[in-house]
Amino acid sequence: MPDSGVYRVTELVGTSANSWEEAARNAIETAAKSLRDLRIAEVTKADCKIENGKVVAYRARVKLSFKYEG
Amino acid sequence: MPDSGVYRVTELVGTSANSWEEAARNAIETAAKSLRDLRIAEVTKADCKIENGKVVAYRARVKLSFKYEG
Amino acid sequence: MPDSGVYRVTELVGTSANSWEEAARNAIETAAKSLRDLRIAEVTKADCKIENGKVVAYRARVKLSFKYEG
Amino acid sequence: MPDSGVYRVTELVGTSANSWEEAARNAIETAAKSLRDLRIAEVTKADCKIENGKVVAYRARVKLSFKYEG
Amino acid sequence: MPDSGVYRVTELVGTSANSWEEAARNAIETAAKSLRDLRIAEVTKADCKIENGKVVAYRARVKLSFKYEG
Amino acid sequence: MPDSGVYRVTELVGTSANSWEEAARNAIETAAKSLRDLRIAEVTKADCKIENGKVVAYRARVKLSFKYEG
Amino acid sequence: MPDSGVYRVTELVGTSANSWEEAARNAIETAAKSLRDLRIAEVTKADCKIENGKVVAYRARVKLSFKYEG
Amino acid sequence: MPDSGVYRVTELVGTSANSWEEAARNAIETAAKSLRDLRIAEVTKADCKIENGKVVAYRARVKLSFKYEG
Amino acid sequence: MPDSGVYRVTELVGTSANSWEEAARNAIETAAKSLRDLRIAEVTKADCKIENGKVVAYRARVKLSFKYEG
Amino acid sequence: MPDSGVYRVTELVGTSANSWEEAARNAIETAAKSLRDLRIAEVTKADCKIENGKVVAYRARVKLSFKYEG
Amino acid sequence: MPDSGVYRVTELVGTSANSWEEAARNAIETAAKSLRDLRIAEVTKADCKIENGKVVAYRARVKLSFKYEG
Amino acid sequence: MPDSGVYRVTELVGTSANSWEEAARNAIETAAKSLRDLRIAEVTKADCKIENGKVVAYRARVKLSFKYEG
Repeated sequence: MPDSGVYRVTELVGTSANSWEEAARNAIETAAKSLRDLRIAEVTKADCKIENGKVVAYRARVKLSFKYEG
Repeated sequence: MPDSGVYRVTELVGTSANSWEEAARNAIETAAKSLRDLRIAEVTKADCKIENGKVVAYRARVKLSFKYEG
Repeated sequence: MPDSGVYRVTELVGTSANSWEEAARNAIETAAKSLRDLRIAEVTKADCKIENGKVVAYRARVKLSFKYEG
Repeated sequence: MPDSGVYRVTELVGTSANSWEEAARNAIETAAKSLRDLRIAEVTKADCKIENGKVVAYRARVKLSFKYEG
Repeated sequence: MPDSGVYRVTELVGTSANSWEEAARNAIETAAKSLRDLRIAEVTKADCKIENGKVVAYRARVKLSFKYEG
Repeated sequence: MPDSGVYRVTELVGTSANSWEEAARNAIETAAKSLRDLRIAEVTKADCKIENGKVVAYRARVKLSFKYEG
Repeated sequence: MPDSGVYRVTELVGTSANSWEEAARNAIETAAKSLRDLRIAEVTKADCKIENGKVVAYRARVKLSFKYEG
Repeated sequence: MPDSGVYRVTELVGTSANSWEEAARNAIETAAKSLRDLRIAEVTKADCKIENGKVVAYRARVKLSFKYEG
Repeated sequence: MPDSGVYRVTELVGTSANSWEEAARNAIETAAKSLRDLRIAEVTKADCKIENGKVVAYRARVKLSFKYEG
Repeated sequence: MPDSGVYRVTELVGTSANSWEEAARNAIETAAKSLRDLRIAEVTKADCKIENGKVVAYRARVKLSFKYEG
Repeated sequence: MPDSGVYRVTELVGTSANSWEEAARNAIETAAKSLRDLRIAEVTKADCKIENGKVVAYRARVKLSFKYEG
Repeated sequence: MPDSGVYRVTELVGTSANSWEEAARNAIETAAKSLRDLRIAEVTKADCKIENGKVVAYRARVKLSFKYEG
């Protein structure tokens, strides 16, 4: 059966002290607690937070789509 | 009187077995059930879902703005 | 301590009869009533609404990120 | 013989109650009444106009190039 | 009745010694003398003209659409 | 089992006398004869071919990814 | 005295059998016959026309701004 | 005599409590103390800094070109 | 001797359960079995595949250029 | 008769010690040995290769579409 | 007190044999030796260097802003 | 041995009365007097300067990366 639903796209930013993979995963797994039918997260931006000349966090901004309940 | 309100922009994906017009309309009319003062939906992406070498759905991603209630 | 939270990005449009600064400020200060930990608002679009050949409103679309509660 | 003329690019918006194809065709065929040597119309934007929660028009913005008479 | 007309998009640059708002308004109000049915002006570029290390003009480039007479 | 393959992205242009949906479908169904595991086709460009002031073809450019055999 | 005028931006395509420089120059010098106060032409696109496997024309699309007479 | 020099492009961010015009002017006038032959500053980004739900600074990122001394 | 060859650009998607680095490396090393003279792979897109609320694959889309044999 | 075929888009990089025109022509004429029905080559990137502080090659990346044989 | 300084934006490329995180960190920590008040590094490009069909380096291009001393 | 250095990216504008190739070459060869390890210059913008309806200069903006000394 073809898919005929409506999805909503949301944009989240995850952070991690270690990697952009972990940053994206943090955002996605937090979202997954309340949103259903997540399938793809596109990275729309990656940056680093710096303090005293050191990278203290990697941040990944991701677009996620999920079933829209209206 | 000039418009002085605040609007929020949301991004939805509609799907249809037939056309991108119907896909966009599905997303918009679903959103219209709960959001008020919709006026324009800009298409930001169009794609096709394929199964067994056949197009099974047209999908249109649209940006919609609506009155923000805070 | 490094920041390890998850943020959500939302896009708002503010309007003002006077300036894009006031338009952005209207959107931000309306959002600040219900969203916490706002730090940066990036302008993603600026336009003017025209009636009878006169500018009746300046509009600024801004992207805001705020603490995501899941 | 190689083409050595000068062309001008114009941008039009067509509207239709039915489809983006008809919207683009309306813009192109209106332009064709006064512009000559039209060959390609690139779609640069597609949107929907909404009233009372219903799509009332599909709009297609197209770039057209035509022979420049100076 | 749905809108079924054809619009043309033009791009103007306004200048002002004081602000980008005034620069955009100058472009729009000059255009409004000869073009009808202007509704939205999107800002596509903003810059400053500099002489002897001072800003002497703010310039705003705007896209305007108006009823196309063919 | 997680997907661990390598895919190749190809870009095709389909044409149709009737619609962009049919244009995209023509490109996809032609590709499907020799490429396997097609799932999504993203539209990257849409235009119209004009002859004698009439639209004679709708063209859709699509990006398709398929299993790479190396 | 600061510049306070209004300019219009137009987009032209020039062609040449020899080079993109000549193509741009053809467009600019043709435009200069009727438009005044041209200062900068930005190249927005460059392509080649091919016939029988040979390049028969270089084409340059340029944006030009000129004094707007209203 | 045609201009035959080499220019360097630098990107600065100015801030102001009042407006983007003042933010851009601050960046430009600070740069003008050490760079010569500044003529145009293009705005490449505009944002707001927020503290406690209030806009505390407008920031304008500008690209400036100046005579390159090698 | 200056390089005077012709190169072709191809776009591949690699996947990995662990990281975008491994995803890109999988795509590149698979391509290297049949394509010669690979030197740079530019990442054009990064995303995550999600199943049951968990990231099951990191995907990197890369553009690769290689010697064109015609 | 309207065009109803399917085209494939390929991206090539040509190089030349002399000019971007020659670089593009090298890519196109090499491609023309095996691809049929080439009509337009859009330049998507231009760069220079440098050795010992001298330009040793101009490179033009072009997108070409040709009849797809499936 | 609102921030009223001027910042300069610089673009660096870091390389690493292991990851894009390490590549970005190398660029940032090298810059931090001479630039003060670094806070955010945005990734603007990521690529891989390939030799003999193997990835020999990950490279990350980052934009950094720092206090401008004039 | 893999490359592990840090590079800085700078953006220059070269001008020439004759061609964009010469304009780029002027910028690159001027930069090469003080910067080491230049390898690629990407063209990011091309324009023409016009006086009295004639092209008086071709300008090419290029991005260059060079060894960063910190």
